[in-house]
Amino acid sequence: MVLIFSNFTIKDTVLRNNMKAEILTIGDEILIGQITNTNSVWIAQELNMLGITVVHMASVSDDETAIVNAFDAAINRANIVFITGGLGPTKDDITKKTFSNYFNAKLILDENVLKIVSSFFIKRGREVGEINRQQAFVPEGCFVIPNPNGTAPGMWMKKNDTVFISMPGVPYEMKAMMAETVLPKLKKENTLPFIYHKTVLTQGMGESAIAEIIEDWENNLAAKKIKLAYLPQSGMVRLRLSTIGPDLNTLKKNVDEEIIKLSALIENHIFGYENYGEEAPTLQKIVSDLLRDKKQTIALAESCTGGYIASLFTSIPGASEIFKGAIVPYTNTAKHELLQVEQKLFLTVGAVSKECVEQLAVNTLKKFNSDYALSVSGIAGPSGGTAEKPVGLVWIAIANKEKVQAFKFIFGDNRQRNIVMTASSALNLLRKFILKQP
Amino acid sequence: MVLIFSNFTIKDTVLRNNMKAEILTIGDEILIGQITNTNSVWIAQELNMLGITVVHMASVSDDETAIVNAFDAAINRANIVFITGGLGPTKDDITKKTFSNYFNAKLILDENVLKIVSSFFIKRGREVGEINRQQAFVPEGCFVIPNPNGTAPGMWMKKNDTVFISMPGVPYEMKAMMAETVLPKLKKENTLPFIYHKTVLTQGMGESAIAEIIEDWENNLAAKKIKLAYLPQSGMVRLRLSTIGPDLNTLKKNVDEEIIKLSALIENHIFGYENYGEEAPTLQKIVSDLLRDKKQTIALAESCTGGYIASLFTSIPGASEIFKGAIVPYTNTAKHELLQVEQKLFLTVGAVSKECVEQLAVNTLKKFNSDYALSVSGIAGPSGGTAEKPVGLVWIAIANKEKVQAFKFIFGDNRQRNIVMTASSALNLLRKFILKQP
Repeated sequence: MVLIFSNFTIKDTVLRNNMKAEILTIGDEILIGQITNTNSVWIAQELNMLGITVVHMASVSDDETAIVNAFDAAINRANIVFITGGLGPTKDDITKKTFSNYFNAKLILDENVLKIVSSFFIKRGREVGEINRQQAFVPEGCFVIPNPNGTAPGMWMKKNDTVFISMPGVPYEMKAMMAETVLPKLKKENTLPFIYHKTVLTQGMGESAIAEIIEDWENNLAAKKIKLAYLPQSGMVRLRLSTIGPDLNTLKKNVDEEIIKLSALIENHIFGYENYGEEAPTLQKIVSDLLRDKKQTIALAESCTGGYIASLFTSIPGASEIFKGAIVPYTNTAKHELLQVEQKLFLTVGAVSKECVEQLAVNTLKKFNSDYALSVSGIAGPSGGTAEKPVGLVWIAIANKEKVQAFKFIFGDNRQRNIVMTASSALNLLRKFILKQP
Repeated sequence: MVLIFSNFTIKDTVLRNNMKAEILTIGDEILIGQITNTNSVWIAQELNMLGITVVHMASVSDDETAIVNAFDAAINRANIVFITGGLGPTKDDITKKTFSNYFNAKLILDENVLKIVSSFFIKRGREVGEINRQQAFVPEGCFVIPNPNGTAPGMWMKKNDTVFISMPGVPYEMKAMMAETVLPKLKKENTLPFIYHKTVLTQGMGESAIAEIIEDWENNLAAKKIKLAYLPQSGMVRLRLSTIGPDLNTLKKNVDEEIIKLSALIENHIFGYENYGEEAPTLQKIVSDLLRDKKQTIALAESCTGGYIASLFTSIPGASEIFKGAIVPYTNTAKHELLQVEQKLFLTVGAVSKECVEQLAVNTLKKFNSDYALSVSGIAGPSGGTAEKPVGLVWIAIANKEKVQAFKFIFGDNRQRNIVMTASSALNLLRKFILKQP
């Protein structure tokens, strides 16, 4: 999803209110773990873009008491409560009844909604049954949120200065209602502060190692009202800087200044940035773009990663412009026959060695006639380790026409994690190798 | 299709213990919508299998007041509170401090945890820094939950008859702690009703096509108090049968009888079963096990899947026993030079053709001297399609020493989905091919 800041009217907004939101999802299917709650994620992202702080998320079952308790709790925390789910026409969906009881408002027939519900069925050549006619009833006094993709209308009500917005749980219905009605209405009726995030993407250092290096820098962030979050993921750590205030340019300037200071501390490990509202670029995307810019190509020899790095490159549209192919020589015979690794190596230093990955890289380069070749050989585990060569030992080599460089790593015991860590380390080494070329 | 356990006749069961659980996830990254809360889904599924009802889920930020308020609310609703997140060694993680304050327990050094934390670093040839030493401190009186995949220990404390279980937010750390310590301890200490699930794994037919074929069978399930859920995923559909009751053997017998009837209806599409409490076997695992049993091997030539199928095979421990390797010939030149596809093919029928995948499979078999070879060539998209060969067109071939068979598919226009669908189709074809051999 790409969300961009240019959606905002960039003007000096006075921070007249600090709106707090709660997201409440209703449905037994969430509580038994049958569906993943993606509605909350999406709503949180949208609100975040508007500068509305989400202070709480909750999920409760299709149960009147549970819903009312959640409403009561939300009123004390939030100015706006976003509710999804439980609006279907079937008996187990009780949100609307609970909602109207909560506001002491009786359900009345809304002729506009009835028209929409009817046309929905007529378009599909069906009759509006009594059950679906019920959908046109809404609590008296509520602002009706049109549902362009379904029959259940949304409802917007206010109690004790807290706005309650109830929408269906079907993601594409809810999203359309938010985009077309709810978010524009919120923007129009409120003067909202700005939130600004920027995330620094790092590879090759653990969370705690980074924390020790950047400790002083981190301690000084509070003075600038910037919050830092460590987000570890597959051998990478993302560092998110977040700030809130009335002037977007000041926020950006403050964050950018801090990122310059941070870069001086861990420059070698930063491979990219996630800009506010954009998807984080992956290492494979960054390497692919580098190659595309230089009109260069890559080929791989993957032993312990077994095709995983190739699959990362080829998952990107247009991969064929930069990716010539890969060989996964999973046996010593294959390493020898397909990539001419000398057999004596297997008897001396073994397949997991500097010499082996160097020969793999150099010969892959020739075989595919690519500009760069990357090779990996290691012991992914869980078995196959020895005292001298433990599980997690990995050699990586990168070659171009001029040279070949090899790197040694020792990761952990978990096979899948070793594969992922090897891939991210290899891609980051490749990135740095390419950048050093004239 | 919604599976609702509260609709089960829990009254019929010998329910000596109706445990209620709450799941609380802590972290700013959830509230700004940066990550999807998959921990709650996973925990809910596990508890559901134990017969523990999840009554509430909540997410709060890394803020002491918010966390304490969430603890207070949970105590009134639940017998067990599962908490994930906020246990990292960095400053933004405040769960442990809040946790120990909440129980009026001071943090004390746990020598066992320190040993584990230290060995974690020593194994990687690194020193334990002060920050990581902090991880070995736990609230006095807590039961320590070992973390086999990381350094932050879990904590199990009790207040007012409610158990609080705090675990890290990193999914693979939390899952291992749940599986190895938390769930066994819960089962041991409580008398829980039996829930029984069995899931039928199918490939090659869509959800609605299956629903039509099995309609009568499905309608008869209610009489046996069995619920059916359709769980579509990556070109496969899992059919989960669930039932709850006081006698496990009766539950198993009822479900197994129904599965026999189901198999008669869609046998050709069933590739395996997920047994209760076990992880679903993947197609790659089933094929790998078949090969291992027969002491046979496989090699691949992957064009449009770009190494993805190889990565599926090699993600399984012990892959080297059955997997000889793969070639990813992403260009026509590579197809010709590495796997001797005749160049005239590219000028006539093209690389996405029966002839091409057949040559790829036959020559891969020779190159790797394997018992089987699998090849794929297709147009993954989003570009590269023509009227005659649209995006989503894929050819798959399987060869052994006796014969080669080719299969044509037309999937959709989503690149990632085409890659995944190609892989699952190829693996299922391979499974059936192997089973037909004498």
